[in-house]
Amino acid sequence: MNIEIGNALAPTAIPGVSRESLERLDDEVSRAHERIETGIEAGRPGYKALDLGDTVDPATITETVEPIPANGPVIVVGMGGSALGARAMARALAPEREWYVLDTIDPTKLVRQLDEIDLSQAVCHVVSHSGNTVETRVTFEVIRSAMEDAGIEWRDRTVATTTAESPLGELVEAADIPRFDPPSGVPGRYSVLSEMALPSAAMLGIDIEGLLEGARSVRAELTPSLFETPAYAYGATMAALSSRGVSQNAFIPYAEDLDGVAHWFGQLWAESLGKDGIGQTPIAGRGIADHHAHLQRWRAGPRDLVVTTLSVDHPTSLTVSPGADLGEVDLTTLHELERKAAEASLVIDGRPVVRLELEALDAYNLGALFVSLEAACMLYGELRAINPFDQPAVEWAKQAVRDVLSGYDTHRTRALDDEPILHIS
Amino acid sequence: MNIEIGNALAPTAIPGVSRESLERLDDEVSRAHERIETGIEAGRPGYKALDLGDTVDPATITETVEPIPANGPVIVVGMGGSALGARAMARALAPEREWYVLDTIDPTKLVRQLDEIDLSQAVCHVVSHSGNTVETRVTFEVIRSAMEDAGIEWRDRTVATTTAESPLGELVEAADIPRFDPPSGVPGRYSVLSEMALPSAAMLGIDIEGLLEGARSVRAELTPSLFETPAYAYGATMAALSSRGVSQNAFIPYAEDLDGVAHWFGQLWAESLGKDGIGQTPIAGRGIADHHAHLQRWRAGPRDLVVTTLSVDHPTSLTVSPGADLGEVDLTTLHELERKAAEASLVIDGRPVVRLELEALDAYNLGALFVSLEAACMLYGELRAINPFDQPAVEWAKQAVRDVLSGYDTHRTRALDDEPILHIS
Repeated sequence: MNIEIGNALAPTAIPGVSRESLERLDDEVSRAHERIETGIEAGRPGYKALDLGDTVDPATITETVEPIPANGPVIVVGMGGSALGARAMARALAPEREWYVLDTIDPTKLVRQLDEIDLSQAVCHVVSHSGNTVETRVTFEVIRSAMEDAGIEWRDRTVATTTAESPLGELVEAADIPRFDPPSGVPGRYSVLSEMALPSAAMLGIDIEGLLEGARSVRAELTPSLFETPAYAYGATMAALSSRGVSQNAFIPYAEDLDGVAHWFGQLWAESLGKDGIGQTPIAGRGIADHHAHLQRWRAGPRDLVVTTLSVDHPTSLTVSPGADLGEVDLTTLHELERKAAEASLVIDGRPVVRLELEALDAYNLGALFVSLEAACMLYGELRAINPFDQPAVEWAKQAVRDVLSGYDTHRTRALDDEPILHIS
Repeated sequence: MNIEIGNALAPTAIPGVSRESLERLDDEVSRAHERIETGIEAGRPGYKALDLGDTVDPATITETVEPIPANGPVIVVGMGGSALGARAMARALAPEREWYVLDTIDPTKLVRQLDEIDLSQAVCHVVSHSGNTVETRVTFEVIRSAMEDAGIEWRDRTVATTTAESPLGELVEAADIPRFDPPSGVPGRYSVLSEMALPSAAMLGIDIEGLLEGARSVRAELTPSLFETPAYAYGATMAALSSRGVSQNAFIPYAEDLDGVAHWFGQLWAESLGKDGIGQTPIAGRGIADHHAHLQRWRAGPRDLVVTTLSVDHPTSLTVSPGADLGEVDLTTLHELERKAAEASLVIDGRPVVRLELEALDAYNLGALFVSLEAACMLYGELRAINPFDQPAVEWAKQAVRDVLSGYDTHRTRALDDEPILHIS
């Protein structure tokens, strides 16, 4: 991943980061880098995510899933970090395979999916770090029992990633299903390049060794300076912009197949940085389509938003002649032209724009992109004194659901029954 | 659509709208309502969108598309308002049909779609209000020429909505293809219930008369008071929150089939209100999935975000027993419980939450929802003195693309070639 941050600098961008401020910030980057490096080397929780390229063994993953007949549909059951990474990889690297990431308990949707998927040919990867995620357990049971009811030997077509001592872990151990341990100390949103998502990637025929190689390349090239490290340049620029009032980050891939990466990034950024009353809201978007929907607001709304474009070379060649006034149009050229035009329109109006550049849409570059953005997120946390590895604000709702399911009467369950106050119909 | 705004009121919500402020605001709502009503009755540009339930003739649409053999795949080609409404309706009301909304010029994606779609059975609705949208012309030419190359009589399988005096209009007239006029004076993002999107809806077997009936019901029930009009309650609450610093609106449907509505709403809100340095950024999300990705930021990030939940009764019944500790779980009940728990967790932390309620996921209620949100958007514009019908900030980039395609050398084309300033690799 390369990066262009010139259009986020003051005085071009308002607000923007002055070159002098960026140089001052680089001292802090150097200290933060030291903490990150120490964290990685000591295998500290969170930081060790940046080391997955070296600590994950792709051969074990490949050998474990090898006996599973994964030529047909691949179903992933999981929530949050157990779904978004798998979907990002499948969308980008296995667009011609049939796959389903079921991070939903919507009964209408699930009943329709059961109708649509040929379960007799399907395989399933069920993923829950804790082994106790209610939605994952429920949705997996929907799939498992549908297979069982159809006389399909689900035990031969399922692989799990979960903790042994957990409800899900006990279920899969009892059924003698292959089980991967989740990487300890790696939060879900940083775990895409681990046993959390690589088994389904392998079943989809994705080059998981390539992904890990890309991860290693970024890890090896982290330096103490943002001016030499694209990942840190991104994290530092975003941290500096956020402390200048830029509270929104529209993350816009210019390739439909990178749509899943934008949503994966959304969780990474929101859950890692949205705490203590600060943070920068990620907004997943789609290049070019969003010019016809959101560009108006990006360019003319409040000056609290940065646009991150993510560009990649399109190798496909397609040329058409839609009319005499347009002549012959090469879609790759037009695609790039439209991105540049949108970026320029923002820049001349003083809106900060950061461009991330991917050399190619392949496993190596995608692995590198994941780790670059994770390192950027950790650096942002360091610079703004936020712990980027926890997510305390989501516990209340989880516990409330558990309280109700357990039949308890608690302050949480009572809060659910509060009457509406101003209802208009 | 019903609405619950009690959880956006101060002092529960911080920031929130006090009950007294809301009552003061109701005087302004009454004056704004008068302007909106006058606008509708006089058929003024923009306002007339609220009258489409009465001015659109569904019989003509049905009769025109009737000869087109639309049992196979339905392809919609268009950008922005010519795509998002069609997608929202197809996702919500025709989930079991095969359809493609191609609001893209990504060559990789288009080449793959051409492989995937059985063009010999497909029909196409090409939509461009101006008839001069570059992306739509290009993508339509990709489809048209692929059909022609395959010996498929594309003229028998295509219908268009566009202006006669335009490049696209001339192409379809020359080919003798059925053509609908776009509704004059209705911006794309307000045109879902018109000839812009209803022809493809009709080809997908959607009850377009039901949609229009829903639209009429909202139009008929607009009153001068936000306390009696759910659409105005939404628009007024959002306008009041935005002037209290709530610059982000996470719009979260609790039904996977309403995903397209969130993206349709995104364009409506962003393009209508994001101007003059003000506006509220819409963020499309997914109920429950987002609890595992964004709830942390909603609840613990800056106090500049309101969550809009959109709930609907799930008629599907699905029950499973995922484990002794959970007992028998009804997915509909769990789905609702999780929404309530997330809402309550936000409310107890003083985060504003507004709940929109849809009685059922059918054509009537979806039509009503579209018009309610459009009326809310217009009211917001009135209250904050914004013109909700134009989108001047997107013109620069459009013109820059045209300049390049025409081979001109202008200040715009030169701005595109500005060298990057700070590139890190």
